[in-house]
Amino acid sequence: MADSKLIRATRVEPGDRPRLGARDTSDRLGIADKQAAATRLEDLVGRLALLQNRLWAEGTRSVLLVLQGMDASGKDGAIRRVFTGVNPMGCRVAAFKAPAGVELRHDYLWRIHAACPDRGQIGIFNRSHYEDVVAVRVRKLAPEPVWKRRPRHIREFERLLADEGTVQVKVFLHISSEEQRKRLQERLDDPEKRWKFRPEDLDDRRLWDEFQAAYEEVIRETSTDWAPWHVVPAERKWVRNVAVAELLVDTLERMDPQLPRPTFEELTIE
Amino acid sequence: MADSKLIRATRVEPGDRPRLGARDTSDRLGIADKQAAATRLEDLVGRLALLQNRLWAEGTRSVLLVLQGMDASGKDGAIRRVFTGVNPMGCRVAAFKAPAGVELRHDYLWRIHAACPDRGQIGIFNRSHYEDVVAVRVRKLAPEPVWKRRPRHIREFERLLADEGTVQVKVFLHISSEEQRKRLQERLDDPEKRWKFRPEDLDDRRLWDEFQAAYEEVIRETSTDWAPWHVVPAERKWVRNVAVAELLVDTLERMDPQLPRPTFEELTIE
Repeated sequence: MADSKLIRATRVEPGDRPRLGARDTSDRLGIADKQAAATRLEDLVGRLALLQNRLWAEGTRSVLLVLQGMDASGKDGAIRRVFTGVNPMGCRVAAFKAPAGVELRHDYLWRIHAACPDRGQIGIFNRSHYEDVVAVRVRKLAPEPVWKRRPRHIREFERLLADEGTVQVKVFLHISSEEQRKRLQERLDDPEKRWKFRPEDLDDRRLWDEFQAAYEEVIRETSTDWAPWHVVPAERKWVRNVAVAELLVDTLERMDPQLPRPTFEELTIE
Repeated sequence: MADSKLIRATRVEPGDRPRLGARDTSDRLGIADKQAAATRLEDLVGRLALLQNRLWAEGTRSVLLVLQGMDASGKDGAIRRVFTGVNPMGCRVAAFKAPAGVELRHDYLWRIHAACPDRGQIGIFNRSHYEDVVAVRVRKLAPEPVWKRRPRHIREFERLLADEGTVQVKVFLHISSEEQRKRLQERLDDPEKRWKFRPEDLDDRRLWDEFQAAYEEVIRETSTDWAPWHVVPAERKWVRNVAVAELLVDTLERMDPQLPRPTFEELTIE
């Protein structure tokens, strides 16, 4: 069964503020240690693989995991650790960078909608439409009236998805500014990771407080009954991985996908 | 290093006939037994994960695995076994069923082109544009002049992909008619697999010889220097999995993707 304590601890109830500043980014969520987390993650990934297979077989509903967080908060790592071990046939990852080309010739939800999972799939958004509120606001890419009205679009867009069979799990990976500093420095110092570093990341780092404030607001505005947010303490990678896996497994267990019934009688094949 | 014997044994040289009827569908390709195959597959999947990470980091080229074969030849199984363990962020699976809706309002390569992998990705086609030659011919869905001219389109389409940085690995999973019978019967008898069975599969089974003849011809016509076919004996699942993994690892090793060089000097992050 799902760890309902972990789920409650991370969930932002509709209407509530996430209170990012008051949350401990290195919380263990009741997990004893790294070893316990590894055992638990292995079990969760196995269950996830099984449930995903049933979701795929059922072929009528889908799951969408939306991952947001500051640079180096562990979005890539969470995807790698939770979904490596799950059949890629039923998974679809979309990574959203700054929109360009044809994307700019449409509204900001156009490319998002196009990347939503097929029925039977688990879709994973590595960044998402939330950049069009948060980053656009903090980097002043559009005037206030433009980003101010977007949370309403998003709530209603997510309601459409939910009504039509896409169950959404929205996760904010929460780290401290000091932890980000460490991780970016590591990227720079490790020859295998150096390529991931973009000097522009430092511009966003200087706007840390503005980003936190923008996330605080948009999470409050868009945590709904049909698409709630979860704030996951992400300073310890092993806590982060277990939490993301647990949220997905809990979601799928509640969906309880069923194998379709065959529409034919017994047959002997010649 | 790659097992060049396995690669040579499966490869159809440009201009050659694949001689499907003369190939042993339960060949071991020199692999001693199931245990040896398991050890080797584990090693190959590890290398595949590493190489895929570098392909992703490099971000300029891509790999496309095209999987074809009769019903129950193991396309789904090969994808699950070879790619579970590879980061889904750099993989993209497209499964092509009979075209419908908007797909039918375009030429047959339109949906194929749209599903090609992004730079840095490994794309996997579970069935492909080859259905538009083989199935269309055997099921008489279009007159002969229509499917007759398609291999030329396909050769040139694949040349475009190759020229623009997509390295293609085309695999025909080869089983015998008797093996298909066994596997379809298993699907029927196993409650977890029953949903996969479609009574229509039996119609294709009755056309076994026509399908083999159509594959024989199209493989000969489309095995090119830039996109060669490999016929993999797929009766033993462990041989099939090792062969597919080996072909991919060999391809990626020859591509030798490189981590991008950072464009900046040493930095200390504050």
